[in-house]
Amino acid sequence: MELKGLSFLGTQRGSRDTLTFHAINPQTGAPIPPSYHSASLAELNAAVQAAAEAFPVYSQLPGKARAAFLRRIADSIDAHATVLIERAHLESALPATPRLSGETARTSNQLRVFATLLEEGSWVQARIDPALPDRKPLPRVDLRSMLRPLGPVAVFGASNFPLAFSVAGGDTASALAAGCPVVVKAHAAHPGTSELVAEIIAQAVAAESLPAGVFTMVFDSGIDIATALVQHPEIKAVAFTGSLRGGRALMDLTAARPQPIPCFTEMSSGNPVFVLPSALRKGPAELAKNLFGSVTLGAGQMCTKPGIVLVPESPDGPAFFEELKSLVAQSQPFTLLTAGIAREYARATVARSGQIPVAASGPVAEAAHQAEPKLFTVCFEQLLAQPELTEEIFGPDTLLVSCDSTSDYISAAQSLDGHLTATILGDEADLLAHRELVQILEQKAGRLIVNGFPTGVEVAHAMVHGGPYPSTSDPRFTSVGSQAIYRFAKPVCYQNFPDALLPPELQAANPLNITRFIDGKPEGV
Amino acid sequence: MELKGLSFLGTQRGSRDTLTFHAINPQTGAPIPPSYHSASLAELNAAVQAAAEAFPVYSQLPGKARAAFLRRIADSIDAHATVLIERAHLESALPATPRLSGETARTSNQLRVFATLLEEGSWVQARIDPALPDRKPLPRVDLRSMLRPLGPVAVFGASNFPLAFSVAGGDTASALAAGCPVVVKAHAAHPGTSELVAEIIAQAVAAESLPAGVFTMVFDSGIDIATALVQHPEIKAVAFTGSLRGGRALMDLTAARPQPIPCFTEMSSGNPVFVLPSALRKGPAELAKNLFGSVTLGAGQMCTKPGIVLVPESPDGPAFFEELKSLVAQSQPFTLLTAGIAREYARATVARSGQIPVAASGPVAEAAHQAEPKLFTVCFEQLLAQPELTEEIFGPDTLLVSCDSTSDYISAAQSLDGHLTATILGDEADLLAHRELVQILEQKAGRLIVNGFPTGVEVAHAMVHGGPYPSTSDPRFTSVGSQAIYRFAKPVCYQNFPDALLPPELQAANPLNITRFIDGKPEGV
Repeated sequence: MELKGLSFLGTQRGSRDTLTFHAINPQTGAPIPPSYHSASLAELNAAVQAAAEAFPVYSQLPGKARAAFLRRIADSIDAHATVLIERAHLESALPATPRLSGETARTSNQLRVFATLLEEGSWVQARIDPALPDRKPLPRVDLRSMLRPLGPVAVFGASNFPLAFSVAGGDTASALAAGCPVVVKAHAAHPGTSELVAEIIAQAVAAESLPAGVFTMVFDSGIDIATALVQHPEIKAVAFTGSLRGGRALMDLTAARPQPIPCFTEMSSGNPVFVLPSALRKGPAELAKNLFGSVTLGAGQMCTKPGIVLVPESPDGPAFFEELKSLVAQSQPFTLLTAGIAREYARATVARSGQIPVAASGPVAEAAHQAEPKLFTVCFEQLLAQPELTEEIFGPDTLLVSCDSTSDYISAAQSLDGHLTATILGDEADLLAHRELVQILEQKAGRLIVNGFPTGVEVAHAMVHGGPYPSTSDPRFTSVGSQAIYRFAKPVCYQNFPDALLPPELQAANPLNITRFIDGKPEGV
Repeated sequence: MELKGLSFLGTQRGSRDTLTFHAINPQTGAPIPPSYHSASLAELNAAVQAAAEAFPVYSQLPGKARAAFLRRIADSIDAHATVLIERAHLESALPATPRLSGETARTSNQLRVFATLLEEGSWVQARIDPALPDRKPLPRVDLRSMLRPLGPVAVFGASNFPLAFSVAGGDTASALAAGCPVVVKAHAAHPGTSELVAEIIAQAVAAESLPAGVFTMVFDSGIDIATALVQHPEIKAVAFTGSLRGGRALMDLTAARPQPIPCFTEMSSGNPVFVLPSALRKGPAELAKNLFGSVTLGAGQMCTKPGIVLVPESPDGPAFFEELKSLVAQSQPFTLLTAGIAREYARATVARSGQIPVAASGPVAEAAHQAEPKLFTVCFEQLLAQPELTEEIFGPDTLLVSCDSTSDYISAAQSLDGHLTATILGDEADLLAHRELVQILEQKAGRLIVNGFPTGVEVAHAMVHGGPYPSTSDPRFTSVGSQAIYRFAKPVCYQNFPDALLPPELQAANPLNITRFIDGKPEGV
């Protein structure tokens, strides 16, 4: 596949008359050809218009047709894995194996998870409340409801997952599965990877004879096109993974529209870890090693990096602390995704080291894109006094909070903002003794982890990758796992419809053989 | 029950030191005792603080305990029906029978619908993805998720449903069912009805030994307390039924918070009705009579009043039109809920009659609270040119849109904003010939009705009382029916938890015997 550097506008590509930018190799700082042409406003409008025109056709396709489309994309991603991984490595400095090969597999797997969901068909939550003609004082009329797609969705590629949360990532897969055309704003840090994947999707659109506007993608290195995209009246929902500043800007833009729309942004999370005494007793060095591995996975550029670790006074504390310090001090510097991210990491860690002690620091980074891991420490009282210390720094740092005992954990947990995850480490007796902590954390995070680490987000039905603000814009949804589809669908009720006019999901004979809720109860249960 | 005119702040009532207002009898314009004391900001904060303190206890109660609480409220509402209806009639001028007696029954029925949902227990959407220790390349850890409550919810009483969508109405019932304490802002037009119902709930709180802050209620006749309520950091969601202006103001306030929160507002809907030729053929006079009944039900002060009626050129058109004009012209004037609503109805209908013809008008209203029904007419082309004609007027008017044929319906439907309902009238052959119209309307309304009228909203599992903006703030939710609970709950994932630390809903033995989803499939199906 030849890279052209032009936006995907449906039946055509963008022009060469606009401003350009390049991907930058984070390991060298050198630009990577080709040059990428930012979409003009007219091109953006053409892309969204194509999506709007595709919607009436695409939204009425049977689930199995949409599933075939998703499977075709997945198969093509697998078939092109080598070239995708090569380009993504050049643009992100993420290791080809196991990281990018794993991320490629996750990307095609995610598409197949949604294809399976569509093939089975029950995800639409079909509900039937049959007519009760003899009910007193008034009869009840036949009521049936199911989920229908929202309309064209704007998806923003994420810097830290050039495949799994970008062009064909979880947001696109779930929106396409729901029946929504997608307009992607490609992330400017990996335009080549984005173009390769977009080409794969465009070919699948053509091969499945779908309207071209089912998938479009615009390039831009600024914010103008992103702003116009989420303000476009034909865009009916937004999905974004990135910074708090960027996500909040999108939330504010969508809320201020003449017609506000659902906007799911996954933003900032400190992912607190609560260490119970039994976890320290079990093996302080092993605990330090596993924690360090989670903090530095993907160079610390994970949404779920454990950025706050609470540790009680314990005879095993010093061994844990010394081992963690040693791991940090002996670490290699990490190459971050972009120079901008490295600069921001340097700024934030310098600012934090002016406030609280740095217990350990890796060797000083030499290149502009590099970052040394940092271990900060603070006592519990200071954390409560300075809640901004729980704010995420994007990169390989973490903050150790020393507590007198785990009785401090209750007020620490109560003081937390929203996070994607919260983790508790300890044996069963210790865990059961801290049930109140679990109950508080239910209100602070979307996923609670026992004896594990938050990095590594399984694509499953029970996964919740979400949480209260500022971790996301809306704690009622997840952006990972099959339930992510519910961000892009809304219920429609059909009252007193003749059977032949109903969607197949709601017809009397249940031709798709899906699980439906009759008077609120699953059919056949 | 003696009316005191003071807010409910948890363990205590509001003070008598603040500004006062009165309910006004719409039929006489006279104030109704007692005087009502607006909550001070300190009192509002006390109410919200009480709710926040109640949350950790209330949110952890078993569903059956919350169900018992809801049933106790329902039983007490039924036991006090006479006094409730009497006061609501005084404050709203809505007829005692069948309207307010039916509304009282609906209010207690709604509470019992949610009680039944809690007793059965499966509403929490428990999902279990069991561990796969042997999976390659990586094992899968045990993941379980279920819905948990959001936190204290601010509920706004609605003017047009002093019982069913006010203090113990659908919003309160669904929030309490979800496990959220409720802080009600009573509607200033029916403070006495509000106080009576609040007293019933407060007694149920005490009888069930719940924390007092599970239910609080503040009075105010202005907007300061409402503003402070939705801006309070301990409020985690908002539910409102009312005007577009009021609902949009709440949406803007909640979106601008440091921590934005879910805000469900049900606002403005024209509820378009598409008449197919076969419906006119079947009986033009009967159609006119039924339409007139729906337009003037509750004096036209229904969220689902049919405000736009599209009619094709037809030999039966004149008979329908003449009958409808005659019904309007011969109607009695209607007493509206408040002088303010009557003034706004007069202003809006005068403004509209400056733009388009008035085909018929009822006898001129004599009292300040009265309104005469109005029948406006416009041709299809003018409707497209002036989309503001589809905006709701709250009261007993409707707009007849004359079309050349039903082929105009496609572009008319495409031009619509969001509505709560859309209705199509016609025989089965005619309906099936207009399938494309149905498909467009799926994107324009939350409920599609065939051969019925939109007024009369059934409290059922398949009901959708929602729709795209401006009918509501978020088309993904409903405010009527059992699914309304999902506005106030969010999923939490429990990863690798020991069984004893899990909520009962997720424990291996399934002690509550609920329907759960194992690897995405309902258990036992």
